[in-house]
Amino acid sequence: MEETFEPFRGIKDDLRGRLMCYKQDWTSGFNAGIRILAPTTYIFFASAIPVISFGEQLERNTEGVITAVQTLASTALCGIIHSIIGGQPLLILGVAEPTVIMYTFMFNFAKERADLGRNMFLAWTGWVCVWTAFLLFLLAILGACSIINRFTRVAGELFGLLIAMLFMQQAIKGLVDEFQIPEREDPKAAALAPSWRFANGMFALVLSFGLLLTALRSRKARSWRYGTGWLRGFIADYGVPLMVLAWTGVSYIPSGSVPKGIPRRLFSPNPWSPGAYENWTVIKDMVNVPLLYILGAFIPATMIAVLYYFDHSVASQLAQQKEFNLRKPPSFHYDLLLLGFLTLLCGLIGVPPANGVIPQSPMHTKSLATLKHQLLRNRLVATARRSMMQNSSLSQLYGNMQDAYRQMQTPLIYQEQSARGLKELKDSTIQLASSMGSMDAPVDESVFDIHKEIDDLLPVEVKEQRLSNLLQALMVGGCVAAMPLLKKIPTSVLWGYFAFMAIESLPGNQFWERILLLFTAPSRRFKVLEDYHATFVESVPFKAITLFTLFQTMYLLVCFGITWIPIAGVLFPLMIMLLVPVRQYILPKLFKGAHLTDLDAAEYEELPAITFNMQTEIDMGSTMRYSFAESREVLDEIVTRSRGEVKHMNSPKVTSSGGTPAADHGGRGFSSPRISEKCYSPRVRELRTERSPRSGGERSSASPARMGEIRSSSKLGDQCSK
Amino acid sequence: MEETFEPFRGIKDDLRGRLMCYKQDWTSGFNAGIRILAPTTYIFFASAIPVISFGEQLERNTEGVITAVQTLASTALCGIIHSIIGGQPLLILGVAEPTVIMYTFMFNFAKERADLGRNMFLAWTGWVCVWTAFLLFLLAILGACSIINRFTRVAGELFGLLIAMLFMQQAIKGLVDEFQIPEREDPKAAALAPSWRFANGMFALVLSFGLLLTALRSRKARSWRYGTGWLRGFIADYGVPLMVLAWTGVSYIPSGSVPKGIPRRLFSPNPWSPGAYENWTVIKDMVNVPLLYILGAFIPATMIAVLYYFDHSVASQLAQQKEFNLRKPPSFHYDLLLLGFLTLLCGLIGVPPANGVIPQSPMHTKSLATLKHQLLRNRLVATARRSMMQNSSLSQLYGNMQDAYRQMQTPLIYQEQSARGLKELKDSTIQLASSMGSMDAPVDESVFDIHKEIDDLLPVEVKEQRLSNLLQALMVGGCVAAMPLLKKIPTSVLWGYFAFMAIESLPGNQFWERILLLFTAPSRRFKVLEDYHATFVESVPFKAITLFTLFQTMYLLVCFGITWIPIAGVLFPLMIMLLVPVRQYILPKLFKGAHLTDLDAAEYEELPAITFNMQTEIDMGSTMRYSFAESREVLDEIVTRSRGEVKHMNSPKVTSSGGTPAADHGGRGFSSPRISEKCYSPRVRELRTERSPRSGGERSSASPARMGEIRSSSKLGDQCSK
Repeated sequence: MEETFEPFRGIKDDLRGRLMCYKQDWTSGFNAGIRILAPTTYIFFASAIPVISFGEQLERNTEGVITAVQTLASTALCGIIHSIIGGQPLLILGVAEPTVIMYTFMFNFAKERADLGRNMFLAWTGWVCVWTAFLLFLLAILGACSIINRFTRVAGELFGLLIAMLFMQQAIKGLVDEFQIPEREDPKAAALAPSWRFANGMFALVLSFGLLLTALRSRKARSWRYGTGWLRGFIADYGVPLMVLAWTGVSYIPSGSVPKGIPRRLFSPNPWSPGAYENWTVIKDMVNVPLLYILGAFIPATMIAVLYYFDHSVASQLAQQKEFNLRKPPSFHYDLLLLGFLTLLCGLIGVPPANGVIPQSPMHTKSLATLKHQLLRNRLVATARRSMMQNSSLSQLYGNMQDAYRQMQTPLIYQEQSARGLKELKDSTIQLASSMGSMDAPVDESVFDIHKEIDDLLPVEVKEQRLSNLLQALMVGGCVAAMPLLKKIPTSVLWGYFAFMAIESLPGNQFWERILLLFTAPSRRFKVLEDYHATFVESVPFKAITLFTLFQTMYLLVCFGITWIPIAGVLFPLMIMLLVPVRQYILPKLFKGAHLTDLDAAEYEELPAITFNMQTEIDMGSTMRYSFAESREVLDEIVTRSRGEVKHMNSPKVTSSGGTPAADHGGRGFSSPRISEKCYSPRVRELRTERSPRSGGERSSASPARMGEIRSSSKLGDQCSK
Repeated sequence: MEETFEPFRGIKDDLRGRLMCYKQDWTSGFNAGIRILAPTTYIFFASAIPVISFGEQLERNTEGVITAVQTLASTALCGIIHSIIGGQPLLILGVAEPTVIMYTFMFNFAKERADLGRNMFLAWTGWVCVWTAFLLFLLAILGACSIINRFTRVAGELFGLLIAMLFMQQAIKGLVDEFQIPEREDPKAAALAPSWRFANGMFALVLSFGLLLTALRSRKARSWRYGTGWLRGFIADYGVPLMVLAWTGVSYIPSGSVPKGIPRRLFSPNPWSPGAYENWTVIKDMVNVPLLYILGAFIPATMIAVLYYFDHSVASQLAQQKEFNLRKPPSFHYDLLLLGFLTLLCGLIGVPPANGVIPQSPMHTKSLATLKHQLLRNRLVATARRSMMQNSSLSQLYGNMQDAYRQMQTPLIYQEQSARGLKELKDSTIQLASSMGSMDAPVDESVFDIHKEIDDLLPVEVKEQRLSNLLQALMVGGCVAAMPLLKKIPTSVLWGYFAFMAIESLPGNQFWERILLLFTAPSRRFKVLEDYHATFVESVPFKAITLFTLFQTMYLLVCFGITWIPIAGVLFPLMIMLLVPVRQYILPKLFKGAHLTDLDAAEYEELPAITFNMQTEIDMGSTMRYSFAESREVLDEIVTRSRGEVKHMNSPKVTSSGGTPAADHGGRGFSSPRISEKCYSPRVRELRTERSPRSGGERSSASPARMGEIRSSSKLGDQCSK
């Protein structure tokens, strides 16, 4: 992304780019058919459960002024609006922990002021939101998101890990609290006698660990050995919601022999209870806020604006990492502008605003990558099967598959890179077949292992559309109505779910993997290389990796420590923003440039633009069933275990004839070790280096001349692979 | 084993065979040094914990006449005697579940008879033991164990799975009981109020699942990625005892806030409590038992004799499966004779007798195989390292390693088979080196990956000695004195341990693997083949596998059902003995012979004898440390995951040039699929078929002429591999 601060420039570019694919955003979603429900439910639970829990937390902290009804309403409202008129539909909005901390602080401030107090709290936060919105407008218009590419991997992953730590902290704290007397309950209730409290705590341990372990297991169902493919696919797609249901069911098993209130369950007023509507008319009270407080609201507003600017952009960036091979353009500036409007809206109706959330946003992209893989794969497998039934030769089979693949691609991308993947398939298959003397004989599955070949071939692609986001937001909205049902979920299941979310967000976080590497026995380090394709293990000396990781860990712990400081705690985003100058000016003095680029590729240079070509993708998901469910495990692995390094559309898959030396890797910290850099002419290498940093790249204006160069250079790559 | 029923013949042969290696049994054990403690502690826990639990069960069932003190004393006494003067030192003795059922039945019978009653119960069981001993003497002298080879894999594995089911049943029942009011407690105690009972049950769930999951994890520590090799090795060796300690520690965490008795702990009188000695003088009372009851004691005695005959022999057989490549001869007849004496002894001092136990006996062999592997491996790695430091060429390196390996082997076996393994290593290494033009250049680790090559090379070998058995029996004896400490273990940890033992006994049980195969998706069945080298998957049609497995499962369920019938329950061994005629006469009518031999190789034919050559093995374990601990994971895998099919010393490792057709596999149900049968001349194949069924084979008389044949035939095998 260019660092331009020309007013409105970024917003205009974003709008232009997203408008081009707006219609396709919807058609593509509807074409996926019933299967869109898998990522939708998955994200719905990941989105709704923390929001409910944060709502409970706010209720305690604000003496009932804000409840789960408000947090759910805000999340649903913002989610629906964003999914319809937002820029990047992969971004998930929700009321997040920092907002909770901020609102708690503001409540504690307001309730002690005689001229504000509990009753005027929401009106005052209305003003805070007005100021926040104003600041967000300014940031969006002036192109503050242009510097989003200065948030390198170091910053994003540190933030991701910090969020995981906060989730885990919440899980542990919640579990410990299950042994205590909750604040709002009558301590004389039967369920709060020491014996029942102990029983409740132990029951909570069983329920939360039960949920955590089974949910983690169910996500891997596709690679289970037992059960039919349909069942395994179903469990992998819907396992986590199912486990929440199952453990909620388990929590009712001993209901005959325990008093009411064991185990503890979610607490929230029904939306139709008296008083639950108080907040909606807050706009009337806003005029009654004293002027001093209206002006003073600017102070928390700056904090919230910084927080949201950072949180929203990083969530968006993590949802669009280059490993996902996204094809549609990003929309940082416009989304920040829209966030300003949403904040304003939330402030005026007296609900806490929602912003882009981690880890839900990257989880969303991952689940859509799985979906897209299913659709692509089924099409190719069907084509290959049909060809075989018609007794095609291998070359005919290959031709048919290439046709099918071409139909599913946007032309530019297809011509440039994807053909190469299929070409390689052809090469290897032909080699195999000719060695068995059957090049023109009819192909059968003994020669051509459909599933395996196609899995090897398909790159990661994401089903980019708006429907899953809209549906999940609607479902969150439905939660408000379904509150009596939600209240049946034990809180301990929630803590287990928090721990699950924290753990689910770790794989693919290179920072986390480097921490693990420090604890890995030296003789086993090569295994890390096997699993994650972590190039840096080969190219950077272990001492440098250690130092870098220790530095990052210290920084993380400082950030984590800051969240514990009552008021300054909300400023932890500043610490993370501070990483930008640290990365840019201090780290290069401590580490060699080549090592630094391998550990954390900075993308300051101007990127070549790639046009998004608005060709309707052909989808055929709606007619598909789970028949090939088992195959998806391969992608599950790719997407969930190695977010760091997956097959890039951009990196030609050249069979390496030797190890890649360290120094060769400059500028491409996460490229696949399979690629032998030596194969390329200097010009090609330069081009590839320029092209590879995709995330946050601006792709709205084409550069046909350069494209030509790339196309010819990729032929070089092909020759190399022979 | 020959089916000879000539009196005393079997005992004499056993004695002759075991006496030849008796001295080596001890020297070998002491040479292993401190490391012998790993298998010892592992087996000690596996032996002591069930015995304590059975003791508790007996105490409840016999109104305190027999307690854990008696069961521990019996196990320790029989274990010590057996490990010193017994035949097969791999066999672990202990008081087992069937004994508990039998004694419970006898107590219920005795206490209702006016002329016996509670006081004469032990005296009467003394007579039962006298009769049992008499019957066991008869069986041993008449060579009843000759037909042990008619207990095919089907019977042994069915019995193994039945024991696992009984253990698991005990674990579940124990856990459920944690929610109930225990019989012997005062139901008005604070800890038995409904709230505390519920809390206790939930705590028990946490403790038992905690133990189960962590114990299962710790056994796999060697393949962990994190931590140093030393630590991982230590955890893998001692993890299970450590986990028992750790979870016992956890059980004390809430001790401040719970009443005494939560969680429930082991219950047993201290051995120095008044009354605990009553039983030792039971011999005085035996004369007072009415004649009618002395004669009547013959009826339970026959049941117990059948039970012990079967249990003891099958436990011994499972501990000596041919996959373990044992070198020392078996001793079924003599061990049965000794069991008779032990039963008599136990009867006369009023303790329940001990017999060979499953799954502890096979667990013992497995843990010793790991030990032996460590010792062998360290020696070879050290040799290779030394050679490299001296800048040896590859051929010198190979020569040195061959020398080292030779020193550690008994000459006969070495000449015949082991050289081949090393030869193969030489071939592949030379090939590699010459392709890099460095045949006579100094070798370094880039050419010769020490750890990998040596792991590939080493066959499974077991450290056969008496020390570990003696030490574990002494430790069990020590438990009697350590009773106040043992009573700190929560019963729920025990139930977790029971579940752990049940699960640990499953891998390698081909019957269990076939049951899993039925639930495996058709597209994943090939994975079973990858993991277990389960030849039958390739050679037997799936329908036949299904039918066979269903038949076996039905049979298992019938046996399991029978254990539930109050009195007839103890007769379930008869059901398993019934499998012998079923296997011999009925199954061949339902299944094709070739399929049947692949699924369950019957070894009725006379086996060729192999001499045990009494050459002192050179061990150097005492000076070794955990430096190569990480390497052992490879063996852990081999031994624990695929008991069914490991590298056989007997099977030349020939690189197969194609799949092995089904029909070729006659007679060797579990041989490695790597061996291409086609390579062998008919004579060789015949010889190999004769030689391969090792378990239960009689190896006490040499046949030098035949040995010569084998040696020349193995050259044929070598040529084949080139």
